[in-house]
Amino acid sequence: MASPESRDERLDQLVATAARVFAEKGYHPTTMRDLARATGMSLAGMYHYVPSKEDLLYLIQRRCFEQVAAGARDAVRGVPEPAERLRRFIRHHVTFFSGHMPEMKVLSHEADSLSGEKAVEIRDLKRRYVELLTGIISATVDETGPDPKVAAYTLFGMMNWIYTWYRPDGRLAADHLAEQIESLFLHGLLHPLTTRG
Amino acid sequence: MASPESRDERLDQLVATAARVFAEKGYHPTTMRDLARATGMSLAGMYHYVPSKEDLLYLIQRRCFEQVAAGARDAVRGVPEPAERLRRFIRHHVTFFSGHMPEMKVLSHEADSLSGEKAVEIRDLKRRYVELLTGIISATVDETGPDPKVAAYTLFGMMNWIYTWYRPDGRLAADHLAEQIESLFLHGLLHPLTTRG
Repeated sequence: MASPESRDERLDQLVATAARVFAEKGYHPTTMRDLARATGMSLAGMYHYVPSKEDLLYLIQRRCFEQVAAGARDAVRGVPEPAERLRRFIRHHVTFFSGHMPEMKVLSHEADSLSGEKAVEIRDLKRRYVELLTGIISATVDETGPDPKVAAYTLFGMMNWIYTWYRPDGRLAADHLAEQIESLFLHGLLHPLTTRG
Repeated sequence: MASPESRDERLDQLVATAARVFAEKGYHPTTMRDLARATGMSLAGMYHYVPSKEDLLYLIQRRCFEQVAAGARDAVRGVPEPAERLRRFIRHHVTFFSGHMPEMKVLSHEADSLSGEKAVEIRDLKRRYVELLTGIISATVDETGPDPKVAAYTLFGMMNWIYTWYRPDGRLAADHLAEQIESLFLHGLLHPLTTRG
């Protein structure tokens, strides 16, 4: 009997469910059997899509970095002013990950869980994304400003730490959170542009 | 034969080694046997100090939150100006954790791994430390500024994320890192006070 869902849709669903289970339970304690239960697939059915648990972790990381980087490049493309490119990068990153909180936790906690070529490939995607932000920051500040790499990692900290405290279904909307992070990073606590929502 | 080290020193050493092993290998995959090997103690000797692996995780978290909170209260005590209290809080937090990077990773990754009364106690220590920072920020901004809770969590993100990228034995000294984070948080990228080091 043919499933109404395509192979791609089943794989998408499997990757999203794996991200949720890894985020809740941790990558190492989770078994393929746990994932089969969570997706409602048979164990054999699941192995038809991915050969191992590590492949699922790799797919979560690869898709996430590819999507967020492609979206960021679209968001800043053709924008001449560096500070405005930076604002758009921040808004895109925060709103993207507020819709991908389990993936964000998995990316943070399992950065070192891949091995071999998969680890190299993900490290490369991540490095290029970090370089995109570092380049935008370099164009925003002159040589009297902070070190662009330190500033980039500090900004990633402001944005990525939200997986520990932010609830996307709570009172604070993702776009308003993005505005507050943008104002804090560009203007600091003592020179605020936005007011509390 | 009496050991030259006191019971307290052996326990300190055990807790510090457990933090390093949990940070490298992850809490869940680590066994008491791994910890015995890393400390050079016998398994029986180790159980003499702590009844379980969870007790070690609890001790790492409790000691870390107690120490960092006590140090922060000392650093801000008697300082009348709120922005200066904030600077001192930031400098203390960053320099403390640059000397406790494995503990910082364990605190971040294993926030939900304790259960029962131990989890309640740690959550309470953490809440009080967050409230200390939120109070300082509230006194620094007026009601046109950003939400103090959002600002506090954003600042913790800037400071705590360093466990993913900062190398305390590298070129950037911890006090200079603290200055850059302080300048970025208070004055933003566009109004820098410090220059790159």
